[in-house]
Amino acid sequence: MSYIQQSFSVQFEYKVFFTEHLFDPSNPVFAEFLDSRAEKGIRKKLLFIVDDGVTKHHETLQEQITAYCSSLDNYELVQDIIVVPGGEASKNDLQLFYWLVNAVDQHAIDRHSYVIGIGGGSVLDLVGYVAAVSHRGIKHIRIPTTVLSQNDSGVGVKNGINYHGKKNFLGTFAPPAAVFNDAFYLTTLDERDWRSGMIEAVKVALIKDAAFFEWMETHADELAVGEPKSLQYLIRRCAELHMQHIGGAGDPFESGSSRPLDFGHWSAHKLEQLTDFELRHGEAVSIGIALDSVYAWLMGMLDAESLERIIQLLKTLRLPLYHPLLEIEDDSSPIMAGLEEFREHLGGRLTIALLEGPGKGKEVHSIDPATLRKAVNMLRDKW
Amino acid sequence: MSYIQQSFSVQFEYKVFFTEHLFDPSNPVFAEFLDSRAEKGIRKKLLFIVDDGVTKHHETLQEQITAYCSSLDNYELVQDIIVVPGGEASKNDLQLFYWLVNAVDQHAIDRHSYVIGIGGGSVLDLVGYVAAVSHRGIKHIRIPTTVLSQNDSGVGVKNGINYHGKKNFLGTFAPPAAVFNDAFYLTTLDERDWRSGMIEAVKVALIKDAAFFEWMETHADELAVGEPKSLQYLIRRCAELHMQHIGGAGDPFESGSSRPLDFGHWSAHKLEQLTDFELRHGEAVSIGIALDSVYAWLMGMLDAESLERIIQLLKTLRLPLYHPLLEIEDDSSPIMAGLEEFREHLGGRLTIALLEGPGKGKEVHSIDPATLRKAVNMLRDKW
Repeated sequence: MSYIQQSFSVQFEYKVFFTEHLFDPSNPVFAEFLDSRAEKGIRKKLLFIVDDGVTKHHETLQEQITAYCSSLDNYELVQDIIVVPGGEASKNDLQLFYWLVNAVDQHAIDRHSYVIGIGGGSVLDLVGYVAAVSHRGIKHIRIPTTVLSQNDSGVGVKNGINYHGKKNFLGTFAPPAAVFNDAFYLTTLDERDWRSGMIEAVKVALIKDAAFFEWMETHADELAVGEPKSLQYLIRRCAELHMQHIGGAGDPFESGSSRPLDFGHWSAHKLEQLTDFELRHGEAVSIGIALDSVYAWLMGMLDAESLERIIQLLKTLRLPLYHPLLEIEDDSSPIMAGLEEFREHLGGRLTIALLEGPGKGKEVHSIDPATLRKAVNMLRDKW
Repeated sequence: MSYIQQSFSVQFEYKVFFTEHLFDPSNPVFAEFLDSRAEKGIRKKLLFIVDDGVTKHHETLQEQITAYCSSLDNYELVQDIIVVPGGEASKNDLQLFYWLVNAVDQHAIDRHSYVIGIGGGSVLDLVGYVAAVSHRGIKHIRIPTTVLSQNDSGVGVKNGINYHGKKNFLGTFAPPAAVFNDAFYLTTLDERDWRSGMIEAVKVALIKDAAFFEWMETHADELAVGEPKSLQYLIRRCAELHMQHIGGAGDPFESGSSRPLDFGHWSAHKLEQLTDFELRHGEAVSIGIALDSVYAWLMGMLDAESLERIIQLLKTLRLPLYHPLLEIEDDSSPIMAGLEEFREHLGGRLTIALLEGPGKGKEVHSIDPATLRKAVNMLRDKW
């Protein structure tokens, strides 16, 4: 057989910076990053796209950005700072996607310029996708403003939009050029947002790091009221574990079927969709983690004490354990379709991350519907 | 400054197979490749998308594919073999893109299944883009059927569609899982297609391999009539040089501004667009190479003998040297806009590959309009 073999590797690097008041004139973090990327003789453009959930609470943000960027050498701010609707809705609107692609075109943003997204996970997913496919990949910078995006989605390598009601049906793996986690944004979040965002830390601790889970138990009361120092530590440690998994587990672009970071997510994705995204992603994941933990206990994988600790932590953090749409009447219950959709999105064999104990994830390849139903009923009735 | 550093590399590998009659029951190449990718317990799907330029000349292709795939273990052919219009038009039609994305959705093609494109470079670019963004990247297999796609675009790592009249404005870098170059398809090409496809070999030889250029000069008469053995050698060597550049030059996903493989392409992209794609890509590149070679000679970079050899080879291969739309009246001539569009697509500083001699590319960062105009006039009047 006659063939030519192609073989190469591509190196990806980026930093996630932790800072406060990123666009305060006295804060050098953003300017220093850009300076480090300046190229002689090239004036690079900066196109900002901002979540309207952010501008609502930070009314002078656009002026701050304009002032900050006016002192940058080698960079030129695109004067239209674009504001887009935040939340999951931004990922459901194909017109919004093309509106942003058109902005890239009209402002002649090239592959040496930067598209910069400021906002929650949904807006960052949308902006990341726009950047990833325009000119076959423009550099993009993420400035996540929610707990969830600062500790999870915003520091990772995925982007995407929903299509035909399927979450993230269109998207790519495209690492950002840099991420700036600005703690000041956390202070203006709605309670539901900062609270639900903590669930990804619970998740990654359960899958990867028993000591972090214990830290959360110890600090649960502070976390429950959003005490800043505790919340910031939670975000940082969660981001770190998330990034270690992406960079260190050998499959950053998920070519296999194994996705431990999706613990609790199969039913969560479906619940979000069934509630028409009335449930926040984090709330749905909380329910999903509760469900899969009870299921693991019923299957004899997880001991009763660990289950109790997990449920207790979720309750202390005032995260939800149950939603009526979780109800399983029979195999045709809507939630059951989530299993097949989850399998299809990952591809290959159904692979669900479950737990053997805090810090100890374990994968299974089938879910017993009767036991799952029992788990749902327990969540409805017991806690 | 406080940050977390992310760093990882992703390995990409694929083979380009050279074969004939790929779906003949006695040809094991395709089946063996799939066998090598089979996973226990997973039945993977195969979704074929075929260029109508191919089905026109190969009327029983769909039956052949169906018969061939019926004997595959672990794989299931999606019964709808999809036929799409071929040529550049397929990349201009956003509805066609979504029609194919919908097919991926409806047939539940997952990340372990394969989307397989059969056709010319345009259809492969479209299919590759569909696969690259569906579920954040489904594996795709390319079966290029033209000289151009077998020696150049089909063996590389890019995909894309046109948007707002801009060539490849939307796309990604996404290496295929495998490429199958089937020489039988070459025998049913229209003359313009096989002839114009040879230009990418002229290009890569001029930039990278003087010996290959000399081989083409020696075999120019055979090549000019499409003698099969010579044409097949040309394709193989061109594919090899193209792939060596991608894998070996350190920038497979083109994060820099340097693209030696785009020699002759800045004006070609513009000419294709100005002629509403009446000019084939290869014909436009031939004109582009002639233009940039004369320009290099006028600028004192290229000696007269080398220029004469290049022009002579293009003429012997009956490839075009000139098009009236090349005409440069002044700086606002349409062709001049191609320089800025080319710069914008690559990003950063204008970088044009020129020649110092056969096998010796050299980059420049500006083009003198007056000299370019002289070059155009010479091409119009002298040869």
